[in-house]
Amino acid sequence: MNTVKIVGTGLLGTSIGLRLRTRGVRVLLADASPTMAALARDMGAGEPDDGSACDLIVVAVPPDVAGQVIAAELRRDPGATVTDVASIKGLLLQQVRGLATKAELDRYIGSHPMAGREKSGAVAARHDLFIGRPWVVCSDEDTPPGRLRQVLALIETMGATPVHLEPDFHDAAVARVSHAPQVIASLMAAQLVDAPPEGVGLAGQGLRDVTRIAASEPGLWARILSGNAAEVRRVLLGVRDGLDRVIDALDTGEGAGADAGAGVDAGAGSRTLKPGAVAELAGVIAAGNEGYDRIPGKHGQAQRRFEPVTVLVDDSPGSLGRLFAAIGEIGVNIEDVRIEHAAGQPLGIVEVFVEPRVAHELAEALRRRGWRVPVERLTEENT
Amino acid sequence: MNTVKIVGTGLLGTSIGLRLRTRGVRVLLADASPTMAALARDMGAGEPDDGSACDLIVVAVPPDVAGQVIAAELRRDPGATVTDVASIKGLLLQQVRGLATKAELDRYIGSHPMAGREKSGAVAARHDLFIGRPWVVCSDEDTPPGRLRQVLALIETMGATPVHLEPDFHDAAVARVSHAPQVIASLMAAQLVDAPPEGVGLAGQGLRDVTRIAASEPGLWARILSGNAAEVRRVLLGVRDGLDRVIDALDTGEGAGADAGAGVDAGAGSRTLKPGAVAELAGVIAAGNEGYDRIPGKHGQAQRRFEPVTVLVDDSPGSLGRLFAAIGEIGVNIEDVRIEHAAGQPLGIVEVFVEPRVAHELAEALRRRGWRVPVERLTEENT
Repeated sequence: MNTVKIVGTGLLGTSIGLRLRTRGVRVLLADASPTMAALARDMGAGEPDDGSACDLIVVAVPPDVAGQVIAAELRRDPGATVTDVASIKGLLLQQVRGLATKAELDRYIGSHPMAGREKSGAVAARHDLFIGRPWVVCSDEDTPPGRLRQVLALIETMGATPVHLEPDFHDAAVARVSHAPQVIASLMAAQLVDAPPEGVGLAGQGLRDVTRIAASEPGLWARILSGNAAEVRRVLLGVRDGLDRVIDALDTGEGAGADAGAGVDAGAGSRTLKPGAVAELAGVIAAGNEGYDRIPGKHGQAQRRFEPVTVLVDDSPGSLGRLFAAIGEIGVNIEDVRIEHAAGQPLGIVEVFVEPRVAHELAEALRRRGWRVPVERLTEENT
Repeated sequence: MNTVKIVGTGLLGTSIGLRLRTRGVRVLLADASPTMAALARDMGAGEPDDGSACDLIVVAVPPDVAGQVIAAELRRDPGATVTDVASIKGLLLQQVRGLATKAELDRYIGSHPMAGREKSGAVAARHDLFIGRPWVVCSDEDTPPGRLRQVLALIETMGATPVHLEPDFHDAAVARVSHAPQVIASLMAAQLVDAPPEGVGLAGQGLRDVTRIAASEPGLWARILSGNAAEVRRVLLGVRDGLDRVIDALDTGEGAGADAGAGVDAGAGSRTLKPGAVAELAGVIAAGNEGYDRIPGKHGQAQRRFEPVTVLVDDSPGSLGRLFAAIGEIGVNIEDVRIEHAAGQPLGIVEVFVEPRVAHELAEALRRRGWRVPVERLTEENT
């Protein structure tokens, strides 16, 4: 790769530019908004597009305009290989087929990096966004090997892992693992809009995790969901089937507003539920267990590979600095850190993740130095 | 507190015992399963129940049997204050009222610590499980102050923060922030059961977060959901309303099995959707934004209230200590920290969250000291 043009300097386009620049590749930046292109340039993602011919063009615009932009780029630069990073692939390929000649089509290979953040725009970009992530490539038997090699070289440069999939298979898969979960998280979070503050104040990490991606951008997601409507709808119909079964199982026959406890025998909280209702509820949770177990790397890498050492610190300036200085003196490398602030207490709960073999030693060394280190947690393997 | 009896040595009961033991309180352990009681004892949570009179009895059994156990304990030990940790409070109180005398009722104060793990049982217990967490107390005007003080002393010993709520208010609140999210996470995870492995392999952190609590125990959750059926159902009906609207908005009129792209104009991926459908989808995501913003606590609020300053550090022992020492010298208080590792590179990306008014100053001061501080990211409000 000598010269790569990036069309669309949002989160993904700018992140790709940043990383290409670390490898010395010449990067041309184009965006419908000159301000956004200038921001990406200021961040170090490349230089303004001067119309030079390119080896590779990466289209990183929203999915509803990607087809037109891909076709325009294929026409404009007759030597370039063109790829895109849109999260829908089937509909997009059809659009490009309708707009491009056969010769132009030979130069187009759709792709989709499975990476993102709940923040968007060039300012959220980072050159390491794609490291270790799957990057779907939608080539087929007609794809010229030299063109495919260019796209694979891009993926390798990003530190990502290429995954070859059919466009329709891709769309069905991302509907399940990305698009439908977005809808579900948003719908759950929306139930909090009119909740009393004292009630929402009881929220724990479970609710935070379920709803974290509900912070995502409405405009972009309306485009993504629209572009993969049939597949997302299919998954959501499955969710609704399950939801209907749960709602039916929870029906005490008294209406949602009635006092659920009236007339219930002591010790038989579920007596007013229909026969089979409890088994239905347990079945839904059990099916969730089974589905969850299918997710690779589900616990997050840091939690799996590293052991947490919990330290209680005063919630005051400098206390974290003293803690990390102490850990540095002890000579242990910190792999990850989580800080929680105790509700209503001037106390921080710091979880320092380290290599399992040094966790006990670190805990002991910190205790000897007067740090408050509660009894170590067991690793997941031990529980 | 001299002697506390814990009835039910699962995750919560054993965790309470572990912490009471660190304070030298005598803890008696009872469980319907002698094996489970012995496991809790072996973990250091207390000694076998010998029938001694107690100051305080903590009932930590599943919610469907809690009422009977509470009533039995009130009768057995006529001097003891009895509390419980069940996640339903309204129905339980009614059950206890049906089983206990007025004098016995005066000694019962229901409570509920907002803490847990997706793992269950004594082996998952930790004495710091409750630190900084809200702990709901359901006392009323008839509660003798001396009895209430005993329960508050327990909560204080656990490091938790008491929150006084009416039983019915509590049940409605936990339906929203805990019970319904459990159902939603399980239903989403269940959609992965028959997904092809290559598809699930595309999963990212978003799906992992949405489904993390889907790993929870079916039996316990069937009991919890049954015991709070009306309130959970009410929240789920709200989710279903939203889900129906999304499913309707995604209807391309071609059926879920049809080829969504057929006959679509190039560049108009959403052309086949009904008028208003895209706005409906954007509205659902926007409502999710709004609901998510209402969740107090760490990674929601910390990210919003505080400004991240990103620093690139060598991934070696001591480098974090030097960084935090420098920040301490600069005199800035750290509110939160996130560390990401660039896989395969000896580099850590540290996000230090601070008060917005000092973020720029901190970035400049760190740069002057030779730290690698890339261009500051804008806060979410600015993106």
